Formats: sequence, C-alpha cells, structure tokens
Amino acid sequence: MISQTEHSALRRALELAADPAVPLGPNPRVGCVLLAPGGEVLAEGHHRGAGTPHAEADALIRAGSDLPAGTTAVVTLEPCAHTGRTPPCTDALIAAGITRVVIAHRDLNPVATGGIDRLRAAGIDVDLDVPDALSVEAAALNRGWEHGLQYGRPLVTAKMALTLDGRIAAADGSSRWITGERARARVHELRAACDVVLVGAGTARIDRPQLTARLPDGTLHPRQPLRAVMGAGDIPAPPAVAGAAQALHLRTRDPQDALSQLFARGRRHVLLEGGPTLLSAFLAAGLVDELIVHLAPTLLGAGPAAVAPFGIETIAGALHLDLAEVKPLASPDARTDLELTLRPPTHSSTPAHSSTPAHSSTSARSSTSAG
Amino acid sequence: MISQTEHSALRRALELAADPAVPLGPNPRVGCVLLAPGGEVLAEGHHRGAGTPHAEADALIRAGSDLPAGTTAVVTLEPCAHTGRTPPCTDALIAAGITRVVIAHRDLNPVATGGIDRLRAAGIDVDLDVPDALSVEAAALNRGWEHGLQYGRPLVTAKMALTLDGRIAAADGSSRWITGERARARVHELRAACDVVLVGAGTARIDRPQLTARLPDGTLHPRQPLRAVMGAGDIPAPPAVAGAAQALHLRTRDPQDALSQLFARGRRHVLLEGGPTLLSAFLAAGLVDELIVHLAPTLLGAGPAAVAPFGIETIAGALHLDLAEVKPLASPDARTDLELTLRPPTHSSTPAHSSTPAHSSTSARSSTSAG
Repeated sequence: MISQTEHSALRRALELAADPAVPLGPNPRVGCVLLAPGGEVLAEGHHRGAGTPHAEADALIRAGSDLPAGTTAVVTLEPCAHTGRTPPCTDALIAAGITRVVIAHRDLNPVATGGIDRLRAAGIDVDLDVPDALSVEAAALNRGWEHGLQYGRPLVTAKMALTLDGRIAAADGSSRWITGERARARVHELRAACDVVLVGAGTARIDRPQLTARLPDGTLHPRQPLRAVMGAGDIPAPPAVAGAAQALHLRTRDPQDALSQLFARGRRHVLLEGGPTLLSAFLAAGLVDELIVHLAPTLLGAGPAAVAPFGIETIAGALHLDLAEVKPLASPDARTDLELTLRPPTHSSTPAHSSTPAHSSTSARSSTSAG
Repeated sequence: MISQTEHSALRRALELAADPAVPLGPNPRVGCVLLAPGGEVLAEGHHRGAGTPHAEADALIRAGSDLPAGTTAVVTLEPCAHTGRTPPCTDALIAAGITRVVIAHRDLNPVATGGIDRLRAAGIDVDLDVPDALSVEAAALNRGWEHGLQYGRPLVTAKMALTLDGRIAAADGSSRWITGERARARVHELRAACDVVLVGAGTARIDRPQLTARLPDGTLHPRQPLRAVMGAGDIPAPPAVAGAAQALHLRTRDPQDALSQLFARGRRHVLLEGGPTLLSAFLAAGLVDELIVHLAPTLLGAGPAAVAPFGIETIAGALHLDLAEVKPLASPDARTDLELTLRPPTHSSTPAHSSTPAHSSTSARSSTSAG
C-alpha cells in the first residue's frame, strides 16, 4: 500500500501526464514525481511527445546529479525496459540509486514491458498497490495508445447528437441546435481528448464544420485534433482556422483503410463525428469501439435519421450495446440533455494482449456488410 | 408537525388508499386511520369506488359507536364538505367527536373543498404539516382525478419503446423485442396505474395487442384498464381475454373527441400506447401531458420511426420537453434499458384551478395541425 505522501505525488504525476500542451499520438503520456525519504518533492517530470525524454528521465535531469539515499519515484506508467529513441528508464532509475518505485499502471507494450522485473532484480522495492481510482485514471490517460498496441488501429469513439425520436435535423435540414450549450461544450472536450476528428463527405460539404476544439470562452484548446475528411471524390477541406490542426483528406470509402492511414501517421484515437452514412459504414465494419450519444429531450417527427441503414433487416440482427454511463448535461438555460456512453458487448475493457494485433475489437459485427 | 405514530398511520392510510382492488375512475382514492390518544389504531378505512362510503365514513363504521375522547383521524385527502351520493365526511368526523385531523393533501375539487375550514370552525385541530414525500405520494394517488377536475379531460400519458436511433421495429417490421424483460414488465405496471389503454387502428390491426395489465407471473393484475381503440373505420376489437376489462371502439380520429368520450365514461388517466400516427395526432393537438420513453441501447439503422410527422418543419419549431426522470431498467439477462419521463414545459405541476376547465394543459402546441 502506498503512503499518503505517495498518493498526493501520484495525483500530481497524473496531472503532469495530462498536460494539455503535450500532443496525443504514438507515445503514452506519463508523469513522474521524485520524493525524498522525508516526503519532500525533489523533482517533477513528464513526457512531452515522441523524441523528448521520458517522464522518469525528465524528472532525474531536473533533480540534478546527487539524489538523497532512499529516494522514491512515483510514476503513472511502468518504466520502460527498452532502448528506443531514448535509453530505458529502468536503467536510469537504477543508476540514480532510487530505492522504491510506485507504479499506477502496467505497460502493456510487449516491446517496452519488463520494467518491473528489471527494477526488482536490481533490489528496488516496486509497489503497484495504488487505489483503484488512480490506476483507472492512469489507464484512461493512454486509452488510444493501449488500443493501438492491442489492435493495431486507432480507438474509434463515435459521437451522435439526436432527438428522442432519432432525428439529427428537422425536415428542412436545420439542426442548430439539436442539443443545448453544455452538450455542445462537451463535444469540444471530446475533440481535445482525441487526436483525430473524422467526418464524411456529406457532413464536410453541408455543415462545413471547423472541427476545432474550443474552450468555453471560444478560444482554441491547447491540443487540437487532426481534422480528417474521408471519401473517394473531391471534398471541400475544413475551413482554414488560425491555430487549428492540419486538415487531411483520406481518399477512401473503407473505414479499415482510413484507420490504417491514420494509424500510420501515429494517430491513436479517432472521434467520428458523422454523418449517418459514415457512422453506418463504421458500424457495419465492426469498427466502433465506443458510442457517445447526446440525446435531446425533443421531438421533431420528421427529418434525417441519426443512423443510415447498415445491413440489419430484422429484430434478431439488432446491434445491442452495453450502456456504460448516463450523465445529465444541464445547460444554463435550464435545458438538460443526456450523455449516454455505450460500447459493443464483445469489446472487453481489458482485452488480453494479442500477438496478431490487427483484428477488430468489435468482431461481433465485422461480417455485416453495409446496407 | 405530525408525530411518529401519525407518520406510520399515514403510511398505512396511503397503502389502504392504493388498494389495487379499488377501480380507478371518477372518484379519488382515499385512506383513513383512526388513532386513540395513546397511539393505538382504532380502525382503518378506505374508499372502494363510486357509491361506496368515503374513507372516513368507512373507518368510523369499523370503529363502532364509542370513540375514546381525543381520537385523531389521519387521512390522505382533505375530508369533503359536500353531500354527493354520501353525506359530507367533515360532519361525520365532527359528530364522532374527533379532536385532531392529519391531512396529507388538500382537495382541489371546487365542489367538495372547504373541509379544513369547517373542521377548524368546529374546534378541531387540523394539521397539514406532513413530510413532503408523503404529501407527494398522496397527490400521486389521484393524479388523473385531479387533472380531470382542472382540465375537464383525462390525463394523457404516452408511452413509447424505441431504439437509440428512434426505431420501433426493424426494416421487416419485426419488433419482439425492442426492449428487455424489465421494461416490458414496467408497461404492465403503467397499464395498471391508468384506467384506459388507448391504441390506434394500425396498432390494433397489426400488433393485435391484448392491452391487459399482467403481473410478472403472467396472471392478470387485479385492476384492468379499459381497452380502447380509436379510428373512424372498422377496427378489430382487442382479443377476448378472460378477466380483461371491456374493449371499446371510439369512432373518431380526433384526440379531443376521444378524450371527451372517455371522460364522460368516468375515465381519468389514459395510457397512449401507439402507434406513431396516433401519438403524432395527440402531440399535434397538444394533448400529451407526460411521455414515458423506454429507450433500448440498440441500433437498427432502418425500420419505422417512433413518431410520425406532426407538423414541425424547422428546428425552431421543435417540441422541447422537460426531462423529469431517468431510471435504468435492468433486466435479468443483464441488458439495461432506460426509462425517461418527460413533460411539456408549459405543463405546470401545480396548475392554478380554472373555472373553464376544458382547456388544454399543453397549450404551447395546441395550434399545430397534424402533418
């Protein structure tokens, strides 16, 4: 069990790891705090993206050369045991004379893992017994990265905003706004938590969305997702916005192909923002890992449906999802939408590591063709 | 403030009032418990439907002629002060020498009210200071009855069961089952809480629903709603079921007309069970007071929509509802649907009494024509 001081240090390490100035992408986000035997913080460190020092190395550099005997390192992720663009962190910790390491989450990367064994072999006291809430938070930091390790493609979160009767716009096509202010702000939070926002050709043409992540005051979030549009033909690029991320046209209609292209660019978490045809193509391919629904307590009676046909003809073929979370989104004008988080039931939250990582995580539906 | 003994007595009076063997209808459900000065229960009574003794009279008869001095009457509804088919309860309580009356909810009936004043004028200690939860429960017992007093028509609760993407059946029309076991059991509870179940011609023809209220073991609930079908043409009657309530064909397409006919028959709470065309007609007429949605965490991508067009062309005209309650309905097979309770925002929960009661309670949309 970790001490109260280590608990506080781990909270701080999680904060450091989540620094919004750090880009998402192919490297995990990690934070590290070094504690003297008396509990004082000697140094803090975090990883700032591919090619920069790992969190442990960052903290050791800041602490200087002479660490007191009995120093503890508190880290959000198991220190790596391999040499990539930087040397292994386990060796650096051993060389620095660290005597205890607190770790919030194991590294599932088959290349980098082994850090715990190596530290223990060097006589270091390794403690993984951290409170659940903190280890869950540590795992959540790198959801897309872990998914990529396991499945060889980015994690896909699909978002839809619709009325109680399943409409995303009224009969005349107007849709501003289906949901309230709080739900719309949530979309910007979701964008900042992903490294790609992806829309289909129809949405790009009709809605011309900026696909930026903005703070409630309207300014840009420090972390902006890649703005991707997919479709075989010519599609207008997202509007030019100063400070927004790059815009990218994926010239394909195949969801798997689009995800492969994004994965090759180091992207690990895609927010699928519509429209109905794109969502259906991903559903038909079994490539939606998580669905976030913003449900407005509103009826329209007519207008485009949220989900286009995706090959289901009869009730026995219905795509059942697990309802993971229900959250009210109360706007200042007193309207309350609901945010529902759903996942395919075959998508285990802790899938076993696979040596052939390129399989679909939602295989239950992967044989269904698009309707 | 009421005593702990009175609190328990009121709980019991609420139980008596809710006796499922008592038919719903044009009379309120009321329970009464008589307490001796030491707190012992002298007698219990409740009203059993039009023409039978009121709850207070029922309890006084059971208590016999000699009440101890200082007896308290605990009642769920303000005792009536008028002579209908039975003499006024206030006079009976005064004549019996009751010295204190605890009342959970005031009588809003303009004809019967005045009981509190009359009791106080007779020197009786009247206490209305009961805990909120109990007065809310007392009011809920007679929702339909109170609505009838205020608006001159039955309360209308519409129920719909649909997928996340707004479908009530798959592309081939199959719909068994959209929702899980618990949600389907809830529908039977809702039927038993109303005095009419109403469906349109299409639903009567296609689904041939029994429209009975059943207990989880499959047997009939002791209280069965009138089984009404509405439509101008010939419609098959609901299937004959031993023990089910009467089946009725309302030969009209006009929701207001249908409600007037039901009100004239003493009905006070209609459960509208579909289909989409009937629901839309009621929505267009502003005659839905409450919407209960059973939302399945399921996608179909195709199939009939839950709500037919009802005259809304553009987003500015959307029918916004207030989300009053969200409740998970977990079935034994681990699937969880959501029950959402919604009400039109103009439907005040405590509307002022009107001397022209025949207006709509959802007037915000009453000028919209059916689409």
